[in-house]
Amino acid sequence: MLDALFKPKAVALVGASTKELSIGNVIIRNLQKYGYKGEIYPVNAKAAEVCGLKAYPTLADIPGEVDLAHIIIPSQFVPDAIEECGKKGIKAVIINSAGFSEMGEEGARLQEEFLANARKYGIRLFGPNCQGIINSDPELNAYCNFTFTFPKPGSISVVALSGGVGALIMQVLDDLDIGQRLYASNGNACDVSIPEIIEYYGEDEGTKAIILYTEGFDKPREFLEVARKVTAKKPVLAMKAGRTEEGAKAASSHTGSLAGVDIATELIFEKIGVLPFHDEGEIVRAAMAFSSQPIPKGNRAGIITNTGGPAVIATDVLVGFGIEVPKLCEASIARLQETQFPQAALENPIDVVATAGGPQFRAALDVLIDDEQIDCIYINFVTAPFTDTDAVAREIVAVSQQRRKPLVCNFMTNLKLERYQKTTAILKAGEVPCYANPGDAARALGALVQYGRIQQRDIGAPQIFSNTDPAAAKAIIEQAGQAGREVLSAFEVYRIFEAYGIPVAPWQVVETAKAAVAAAEQIGYPVVVKVDCAEIDHKSDMGGVAINLKDAAAVRATVEEMQNRLGNYGKLGYLLQKFLPGGRELIIGASAERELGHLVMFGLGGIYVEVLKDVVFKVAPVTRVEAEEMLAGIKTAALLDGVRGEAGIDKQAVIELIQRVSQLLGDLPMIEEMDLNPIMAFADKAFAVDGRIRIQLEN
Amino acid sequence: MLDALFKPKAVALVGASTKELSIGNVIIRNLQKYGYKGEIYPVNAKAAEVCGLKAYPTLADIPGEVDLAHIIIPSQFVPDAIEECGKKGIKAVIINSAGFSEMGEEGARLQEEFLANARKYGIRLFGPNCQGIINSDPELNAYCNFTFTFPKPGSISVVALSGGVGALIMQVLDDLDIGQRLYASNGNACDVSIPEIIEYYGEDEGTKAIILYTEGFDKPREFLEVARKVTAKKPVLAMKAGRTEEGAKAASSHTGSLAGVDIATELIFEKIGVLPFHDEGEIVRAAMAFSSQPIPKGNRAGIITNTGGPAVIATDVLVGFGIEVPKLCEASIARLQETQFPQAALENPIDVVATAGGPQFRAALDVLIDDEQIDCIYINFVTAPFTDTDAVAREIVAVSQQRRKPLVCNFMTNLKLERYQKTTAILKAGEVPCYANPGDAARALGALVQYGRIQQRDIGAPQIFSNTDPAAAKAIIEQAGQAGREVLSAFEVYRIFEAYGIPVAPWQVVETAKAAVAAAEQIGYPVVVKVDCAEIDHKSDMGGVAINLKDAAAVRATVEEMQNRLGNYGKLGYLLQKFLPGGRELIIGASAERELGHLVMFGLGGIYVEVLKDVVFKVAPVTRVEAEEMLAGIKTAALLDGVRGEAGIDKQAVIELIQRVSQLLGDLPMIEEMDLNPIMAFADKAFAVDGRIRIQLEN
Repeated sequence: MLDALFKPKAVALVGASTKELSIGNVIIRNLQKYGYKGEIYPVNAKAAEVCGLKAYPTLADIPGEVDLAHIIIPSQFVPDAIEECGKKGIKAVIINSAGFSEMGEEGARLQEEFLANARKYGIRLFGPNCQGIINSDPELNAYCNFTFTFPKPGSISVVALSGGVGALIMQVLDDLDIGQRLYASNGNACDVSIPEIIEYYGEDEGTKAIILYTEGFDKPREFLEVARKVTAKKPVLAMKAGRTEEGAKAASSHTGSLAGVDIATELIFEKIGVLPFHDEGEIVRAAMAFSSQPIPKGNRAGIITNTGGPAVIATDVLVGFGIEVPKLCEASIARLQETQFPQAALENPIDVVATAGGPQFRAALDVLIDDEQIDCIYINFVTAPFTDTDAVAREIVAVSQQRRKPLVCNFMTNLKLERYQKTTAILKAGEVPCYANPGDAARALGALVQYGRIQQRDIGAPQIFSNTDPAAAKAIIEQAGQAGREVLSAFEVYRIFEAYGIPVAPWQVVETAKAAVAAAEQIGYPVVVKVDCAEIDHKSDMGGVAINLKDAAAVRATVEEMQNRLGNYGKLGYLLQKFLPGGRELIIGASAERELGHLVMFGLGGIYVEVLKDVVFKVAPVTRVEAEEMLAGIKTAALLDGVRGEAGIDKQAVIELIQRVSQLLGDLPMIEEMDLNPIMAFADKAFAVDGRIRIQLEN
Repeated sequence: MLDALFKPKAVALVGASTKELSIGNVIIRNLQKYGYKGEIYPVNAKAAEVCGLKAYPTLADIPGEVDLAHIIIPSQFVPDAIEECGKKGIKAVIINSAGFSEMGEEGARLQEEFLANARKYGIRLFGPNCQGIINSDPELNAYCNFTFTFPKPGSISVVALSGGVGALIMQVLDDLDIGQRLYASNGNACDVSIPEIIEYYGEDEGTKAIILYTEGFDKPREFLEVARKVTAKKPVLAMKAGRTEEGAKAASSHTGSLAGVDIATELIFEKIGVLPFHDEGEIVRAAMAFSSQPIPKGNRAGIITNTGGPAVIATDVLVGFGIEVPKLCEASIARLQETQFPQAALENPIDVVATAGGPQFRAALDVLIDDEQIDCIYINFVTAPFTDTDAVAREIVAVSQQRRKPLVCNFMTNLKLERYQKTTAILKAGEVPCYANPGDAARALGALVQYGRIQQRDIGAPQIFSNTDPAAAKAIIEQAGQAGREVLSAFEVYRIFEAYGIPVAPWQVVETAKAAVAAAEQIGYPVVVKVDCAEIDHKSDMGGVAINLKDAAAVRATVEEMQNRLGNYGKLGYLLQKFLPGGRELIIGASAERELGHLVMFGLGGIYVEVLKDVVFKVAPVTRVEAEEMLAGIKTAALLDGVRGEAGIDKQAVIELIQRVSQLLGDLPMIEEMDLNPIMAFADKAFAVDGRIRIQLEN
């Protein structure tokens, strides 16, 4: 599908320029410098030659077939240029020019116009307002971009919303001497989207791992569905910027497309097994490890060091990733005793001491490779002046190339010294992931372990509960919608909950004091009375809730008093409910996210949600495994098991409740916001005792 | 004092070696290569010449005066060598040799022996088992070390417990092209200590900032007192490794001196204004900013960028440091409008766009320099191929050199291209702190802002409350100590609290049911009864606490029942206390830390301390400002102000309580552990309602 874009046999440049340092000149020079194997056709009405190549007045004048064109001309001429591309039979176009949807109405109109032209001819558009693509395949060497980094061939492919960050990632990879495969930064992304590019990378055999930089997605559900398939095949390492209010504002200012902090993107990453990063340096250094090392089967690291302090730093960082640094078994220690210097520390970290040479390093490596209690290896290697550092490097390479267990190396040296340049070259040629300090190396190993964990996690499919009545729930919502009511009444909310088997405290809605007493008798004392009135939103603050009413007199007095005090707000109903004290207050919430579906939230109620903000979100539909993760994921999870002699709560009931809420949301996409707050959870059951649903009214 | 060590006029090497790559050879070559201006005297019994220098059979044979000697011989010969140093009049000795306290008893004995010899002659010892020192002063060029990095002169001085980390820091500084002043890594540190070195750096005029790496201190109080004076004069940037249990174990394995996670070191940093780091890369990159930039007066950053995404990343990171990215004032925006390209975004971040040249960058920089709402400047500068990047660099340098506001630059370029090497050289020569990615640059600016905050913080002196009775408290403890009791009785604890004006709920200790009733009548109902018996440690778990007793009958019955049930444990007393329900449970704790004094802990009681571990520690003595910080520092601080309609607590009372506890601890160093748990805090008062004191018995 995107082959014309990523594997062009001939590239035309509409707006090719003889002016040095102009984009229409830089791209041609880049193609030439990178050794592009296809034809390059500059299009320029005035010049006969551009960058030493014959130039053509128009696309139509080009003799051969062209599959990809760059367009580098003022925005108002782009629609016509696309028309000409169509006539020439061009299949893909990179529009480098800016001045479209990012620049207001007139630009947006132009964008619509050229899009229509493209559709007419079946042209795929990349951009506008973008860099372009790179394909490092030595058979092709396509550098259709105006950036200044020339990646060597490799297996890491990069896609970035921001050209600046894309170029940065490419540069840092290159600085680290890591090969790259495909690169794409598609600016306004009016047609070819990031999900499509991810899908293409997923199918590209040369791509072993993918780096994604984004500030959010226009169509998050599309990304979720596409990337889910890709993550099943290869690692996707991703960074989402704009995590803070201010960052999101900065993002919105340069892309014009998003506003507000978007937590959904990171939740999608989690759901589908994308490895998340918060630091652009870290993602690239992790990619180095992914490009040559296997994925660890577990989280137990063995450390080999020839200097003390860096092992301490590495241990701190590894532990922060949930990595264990276990004791070595006796057999391993015995083997070390035979091979290491007397001053060596035969523990984990293994301190082979600064005088250790190739044999000592190799023996220690072999021990860790063979030890079944160890899943991955971290090495500190300082080029001590009194040892054969080349020999050490050769042994590390040999063990790395066995690909039995992943290893990373914190390689501490002075590259200005010729002697160590050689050592460095040995490690690089052997594709050992080397880092300049212990923290960086440990974080790269941490990423490998984290990904191993992601690979092993199976969230399963969402459970479908059959004893539900979606039609009844839908009818209630439609009725409210037709009446123009955004916020549903308590009666409607509880009926919907019941339609999905969500346990609620026994309840009735009545309109008079007399009926209230009758209802209370039926429910059984003690009861709660809550006023139910469309005009009263915060009934608690308005004195519209009375708890623990123990007899008929109390119920009657309460209802009459509320009627007197609140009757002027509108027609009052009264919700009577069984009063259920002594449980643990929980909260489940849901909100619709633009173009994605619902997010589901779980937490402890009261101060835990209000003061501690101790809640966990998931993207619906929520599977059983995810619901379990939600309960385990709050900081105060221990409270669910009971502390200080209190009984724990019925977690299975809550897990089922979350799943039923999720199913309800899937069936009822018109729900904008919903909460079950509080849920009262006991040792053997859990009930929603209050709920709220707000729906999206159709315009 | 340490001038002989750091400014040696002549260096002798006992153990100078003709064998290449041996330490006794490498150090001489390093001195030569670095251009040492003093005399170098190899001492070697067999060789006439070492590294082209005349060698002497013994120290006594050296004709000239020597102030510093390296000792690089097997450990058993070191004591005699020190004796000879003494006779020669040598003032400081670096013992590179290993095999002492880190290697068990025999080594420790040798260490004692040579230390005695050193004391006899007033020699200061550096090491053993260490690297040495470097002084980059071009008048001296002393490289008394076997490492392989040759720092250029500068103003950053480094001291590291671990030679490996010290060398790493030196290397990374050098890779970043940052000049260095003094370097020291003193291994076993049997004499010259890290605090002494810090003090020396503090007095060294050429040192503008200090980097410290440690895994803890043998004498933390000495460090605290010394470094406190230094931080008043210049920034101390410090990293403490061994933060995790496993990391501490690794540290203990290579230094042999520490065990267990030590939180005290970071608390000392906080107390005296050392800037703390958790990443060795970050500390060095921060040092680059400190070496050339002023300290910001506030936390408001202006961002200039010529590419979108990196500004988003930077904003996220800056916000994480508590830095604001405020809107620009209208005057600033108007000035930008006059000077920037039409496509530029005139907000904060200011996107000058990729085509911006020197004039656009300079104009934007001038606006931020002049804007009083901005305290510091962050720049993203990607070397766009279509602009004069040298001109941009020159403008950044010019503004940086005004030293009006600190700036950092994320400089994104390809150093392989000659064109950009020139741009890079301009920035480096101008001492602009440049980083390879936005996160790194933003964190460096974050460190500057954080330090500005530290500089402005004044914790004041500890308040001394005069209405206290230390003699009475001391007498109680001495009596318990003489009786061999580690854990004080309730009676003793409350008496000590009272001696320090710590409010306790009204109480009496009695021995019979009859006396209990009389006491309860005096205290006023309701009361609590707690059994008081040296043999019963966890009285709650044993059923030794009864709350909310409302009349004489209840008190009598309770005491009689406890006597029957628990009487066989030993002689029982009964503590009667006013029952004070409905307050907020707090906890204040204290523990003695080896060689430091006490740590004081504050938190909310119950699940907040047990499940959430939401507590704050400070090193005693705790000042009023620190006590206020403790209350504000817990995650659940909002609960102290009252939530959900509850009243807040009397914070002033709790702040005073903490200070009184601190004064008590200062007077009574023999207290090992103490807690006031719970304290019941109300809107207008706070009482300790239970307390526990454990003392250190003299052996």
